[in-house]
Amino acid sequence: MRLIINSGGPQAIDEWRAQFRVFAPELDVAGWQEDVDPSSVDYALVWAPDAGRLATFPNLKLIISAGAGVDHILADPTLPRHLPIARMVTARTQTEMAEFVLTSALMITRGVKRIVDNQSRRHWEIFDSLRVAADVRVGIMGLGHLGVASAQLLSRVGFPVSGWSRGASTLPGLPSYAGQEQFGDFLANTDLLVCLLPATDSTRGILNRDTLSRLPKGASLINAGRGSHMVTQDILDALDSGHLDQAILDVFEQEPLPPESPLWSHPGVIVTPHCAAIPDRKERARHTALLIAANERGEALPNIYDPQRGY
Amino acid sequence: MRLIINSGGPQAIDEWRAQFRVFAPELDVAGWQEDVDPSSVDYALVWAPDAGRLATFPNLKLIISAGAGVDHILADPTLPRHLPIARMVTARTQTEMAEFVLTSALMITRGVKRIVDNQSRRHWEIFDSLRVAADVRVGIMGLGHLGVASAQLLSRVGFPVSGWSRGASTLPGLPSYAGQEQFGDFLANTDLLVCLLPATDSTRGILNRDTLSRLPKGASLINAGRGSHMVTQDILDALDSGHLDQAILDVFEQEPLPPESPLWSHPGVIVTPHCAAIPDRKERARHTALLIAANERGEALPNIYDPQRGY
Repeated sequence: MRLIINSGGPQAIDEWRAQFRVFAPELDVAGWQEDVDPSSVDYALVWAPDAGRLATFPNLKLIISAGAGVDHILADPTLPRHLPIARMVTARTQTEMAEFVLTSALMITRGVKRIVDNQSRRHWEIFDSLRVAADVRVGIMGLGHLGVASAQLLSRVGFPVSGWSRGASTLPGLPSYAGQEQFGDFLANTDLLVCLLPATDSTRGILNRDTLSRLPKGASLINAGRGSHMVTQDILDALDSGHLDQAILDVFEQEPLPPESPLWSHPGVIVTPHCAAIPDRKERARHTALLIAANERGEALPNIYDPQRGY
Repeated sequence: MRLIINSGGPQAIDEWRAQFRVFAPELDVAGWQEDVDPSSVDYALVWAPDAGRLATFPNLKLIISAGAGVDHILADPTLPRHLPIARMVTARTQTEMAEFVLTSALMITRGVKRIVDNQSRRHWEIFDSLRVAADVRVGIMGLGHLGVASAQLLSRVGFPVSGWSRGASTLPGLPSYAGQEQFGDFLANTDLLVCLLPATDSTRGILNRDTLSRLPKGASLINAGRGSHMVTQDILDALDSGHLDQAILDVFEQEPLPPESPLWSHPGVIVTPHCAAIPDRKERARHTALLIAANERGEALPNIYDPQRGY
């Protein structure tokens, strides 16, 4: 049984092989650049595969995304649409994302960007009073595994948390809003908006002027979804007008974020380099081995891309 | 009944009066600079009172510190030693401190200083793997109200937490070390050392070369105790050698931290301006009013300075 891997480049293949020797020793692991018989490929673990390549494997059974999203796979116009795509959502991914959102939420609550900017100017600023978690209502857009894990961790620390999803997903035990008709209510009650939506046609550009204007004045933003969710100029305008106070952005339309982007130097923005959740190769190899074994036993797989929902 | 206040300077006295009108309308509130009959002063709420002034109030019943520490009051050589001193430890103080420690611990876990330094150079760095809270053993020095509240919050998020105190204080439900003989074991099992000790003769300079050398290589430090706990040059040396990875420092021997301090520009250091816990005037007025009322009823007061323990 053969697994072909496009993740981390040719320099990563030795580590991938070493990891799979532990978790699935029977698996024959090939690098994406290797010259293998296309009919021998049963499984593919990929990030942004070059267009057309997946269609050359006639016996492929399952595509496994190297990340939580699948947009980088769907971008291939020749993608064999009948094949299931498994999203890489592991327990570790959920913990990393939840802790990224918590870290970012606390940094915004305490105004850390201002403190580190002060430090770079050797400026000691006296603060008169502080916000704590209980003062900041967090609204999470996107209630998949990552949204739920983040909501639960923030709630445990003391943030008042609510959630919104396009469909009917809800946060267990926490206030949830659904659909376009409840979007305005959700935003009006959110001091810190967290985007964990999948990248779909209907979520493209959702972080725009209209959405931001419905937040209370002085609200802040965390985007750990996708760059395509943001209308960057609208976010900059909202920051410049003071309507938006701070933003922590982990994802961008173009990555790496180009040096000329005004986001780098905006005093209200922290740029993080798409590092919210990076399960290491060990974790991804273990998860991939479990998926392949379950698939071979004919079991239903978790977190399979649903074209109807778009994620 | 008269309360005299030295906190926030003359410009703060109007706000103090407004707050006490709510919480203790019968109280006559005087500013520190006002010319009042010394025999009319029953209570004093102070931060770093000028030496000699407290001794001029013959009928003073209780000194209330405007902060959690009392070192700024004990520094007065003429302090009337028979008077009780109440420390300002409110529920809000505990929440603020616990969230400061949590924010700092998560920032160190995620390497936020490196990320914001990269941002200032418009540099996008690829991260291969991440640490999560469960990977970082936190050791808290000082198990008073603030230490216990911090330990509980960090533990709730997933950090493995232990505590150390000079005396026999323990962390409810968490591993605790006590005294000089267990200090080495405590340090050897600590990846992130958090200092929340009071400023006493026996804790002065405790964050020194010897203490730091007993931490595992690559450990980090948070100091939200007092500046007098640190031997600054020893901390800088440990950072430069790589033995210490990162430090978040909120308190300093001299505050504001002088512009020439090398701490401002060290890549491994975040300087925060003594802002870990700042209960606002409303919170402090409410707490002071409760203390005065309890004292007038002859009740025992919480968090009274104990000269034997030193805090």
